[in-house]
Amino acid sequence: MKSFIPPTRTLMGPGPSDVHPRILSAMARQTIGHLDPAFIGMMDEVKEMLKYAFITENELTFPISAPGSAGMEACFANLVEPGDKVIVCINGVFGSRMKENVTRIGGQAIIIEDDWGMPVNPEKLEQCLIDNPDAKIVAFVHAETSTGALSDAKLLCELANKHGCLTIVDAVTSLAGSELRVDDWGIDAIYSGSQKCLSAMPGLSPVSFGDKAIHKLSNRKTAVTSWFLDLNLVMGYWGKGSKRAYHHTAPVNTLYGLHESLVMLTEEGLENSWSRHQKNHQLLRDGLQTLGISYLVDESSRLPQLNSVIIPEGLSDEEVRNSLLANYNIDIGAGLGILGGKIWRIGLMGYTSRKENIERLLSAMKETL
Amino acid sequence: MKSFIPPTRTLMGPGPSDVHPRILSAMARQTIGHLDPAFIGMMDEVKEMLKYAFITENELTFPISAPGSAGMEACFANLVEPGDKVIVCINGVFGSRMKENVTRIGGQAIIIEDDWGMPVNPEKLEQCLIDNPDAKIVAFVHAETSTGALSDAKLLCELANKHGCLTIVDAVTSLAGSELRVDDWGIDAIYSGSQKCLSAMPGLSPVSFGDKAIHKLSNRKTAVTSWFLDLNLVMGYWGKGSKRAYHHTAPVNTLYGLHESLVMLTEEGLENSWSRHQKNHQLLRDGLQTLGISYLVDESSRLPQLNSVIIPEGLSDEEVRNSLLANYNIDIGAGLGILGGKIWRIGLMGYTSRKENIERLLSAMKETL
Repeated sequence: MKSFIPPTRTLMGPGPSDVHPRILSAMARQTIGHLDPAFIGMMDEVKEMLKYAFITENELTFPISAPGSAGMEACFANLVEPGDKVIVCINGVFGSRMKENVTRIGGQAIIIEDDWGMPVNPEKLEQCLIDNPDAKIVAFVHAETSTGALSDAKLLCELANKHGCLTIVDAVTSLAGSELRVDDWGIDAIYSGSQKCLSAMPGLSPVSFGDKAIHKLSNRKTAVTSWFLDLNLVMGYWGKGSKRAYHHTAPVNTLYGLHESLVMLTEEGLENSWSRHQKNHQLLRDGLQTLGISYLVDESSRLPQLNSVIIPEGLSDEEVRNSLLANYNIDIGAGLGILGGKIWRIGLMGYTSRKENIERLLSAMKETL
Repeated sequence: MKSFIPPTRTLMGPGPSDVHPRILSAMARQTIGHLDPAFIGMMDEVKEMLKYAFITENELTFPISAPGSAGMEACFANLVEPGDKVIVCINGVFGSRMKENVTRIGGQAIIIEDDWGMPVNPEKLEQCLIDNPDAKIVAFVHAETSTGALSDAKLLCELANKHGCLTIVDAVTSLAGSELRVDDWGIDAIYSGSQKCLSAMPGLSPVSFGDKAIHKLSNRKTAVTSWFLDLNLVMGYWGKGSKRAYHHTAPVNTLYGLHESLVMLTEEGLENSWSRHQKNHQLLRDGLQTLGISYLVDESSRLPQLNSVIIPEGLSDEEVRNSLLANYNIDIGAGLGILGGKIWRIGLMGYTSRKENIERLLSAMKETL
């Protein structure tokens, strides 16, 4: 066997996004112990910078040592007890996955469905909250990576809070790419991913939990089924003070990468990052328009960082994607689930969201189509 | 906030171990997509090399996308159903963690205990198997990282198999450091860590499941509680063929690192790696003897890669460790649980297991004590 040298790609799919050379360098720094005082200092900085990215004062803000799906599971496993009624809003793959999480734990999932490509409908949620006064949690996806639709997280949380429900929000694709305000919007538990608009490598899931979520967690009648994701234990390691209790071995180098990506976010400024994603999205949109390619999602709820476009009649999904990869080293995403073969997902996330990438893609598509 | 530049340490604790520069370089290679054909080719090589390291033909051999504790949880979450009787052998921290896994899932844990520092007693296991003919699984730790004791995995598995039980084996610290033969010894499910004798960075847990384990998994009456760790789903991504179904986003760069560490293992040869760990252990042992430092574990069951030594009377645990770290940049491990303050754990794992490190440590200890 030989060392693996990856090809040089431009990652324009649904994530991972292109990783900045500064972040790649950080990954190669010498591994140190996960209880080393220097490492604990770095962990504290990661927590501080994640609070900045989420716009929250939540003390319980840190990265789970596993990808976004584990962050999702951390939220449900800690906050849902068997028998709890959870309203799950489904408008794509990741809403369905939330439902799976609820039912496997023994919770009762009440489903609101919207067409794939549409945002979550607040009126349906309100009606559902009225019909289910005993519901304890509302869960929805802020930015549906499978469809490219952005839901009105602020309004949905307002409704949930009004009816006494906690909120669990999937911000895997939105964090650092779209406006997101955890404290202002009343989000009780949120999870994201390192490999989208933060442009770090995959493998970490930043999460944040507010006081009401911690109250629910502290008053559980049953143990959290997952030992690995039990926040009561994880916080012994990610908590306050210089003494940290060993729980599991943190992915040291991946955390170096996340730290560097967050340093870069503070340098750029969070709002500047949001507007860069928006500006570059418009560039891409205008270019695709001249190629006759249209969007799945209406402009009013379109994600700037995840452009889901309808595959023009007569074109082979796979042939085009394979050609972009083989001839131009550009990786765009296929449709997922019921949208497989119907859409492409063009990511402009994090370091990928640059003018030169858009120009390269448009020119490659023009030649390919 | 500024970039984080870690201090230069020599990692001589219970893991992570020092990472070879070749592996650090691999981590910094450009991130590509987790469904990229080039990446899938690399995944296949990782699987092949893990089969070599575990000495198994098990098709279901791959790394879980999270640290060793999640690998442990993957074994229990998939193989234990509510009500299942599981015999758990406890002779340190990680056996206790296994018990936690069993009971949180709703299994019934039957405990055999041995003193910390002793190997698992096969006679106790045999008696327990006779007393519990309805037990379905036997779980034990091959190399107890908390005590430095090696148990006779071959004999324990033989007994379990004779009584019709499946075996779950913790090989976090043993893989590539001590003799371990998954197929020959009749191990049904096993998990390890990337950051010990493989010297890759923390964050991955190599696992392997044999036919009998897969049979139990396929015939479950209840869904696996964890969506993230459900092998029925994970295998859609890590399975055979060139088509892989998206499950979660794999930690791409960390897998580059594991790949490189496994290439280095094939270059050195598995048995050579075992004997290097043994030879260097003897060097350290002889040196510690001249300093008057003795071992917790009897020579017959002493782990070469994890040397747990008794803190000499009158010395302060923390002062010595802090001094080694501050003055020599050498990181050794504290005792865990009931052994806290009583032992030091000196790791000679993977790339750390080199003569020059042993000499540096011995000379630093001589000056410090």
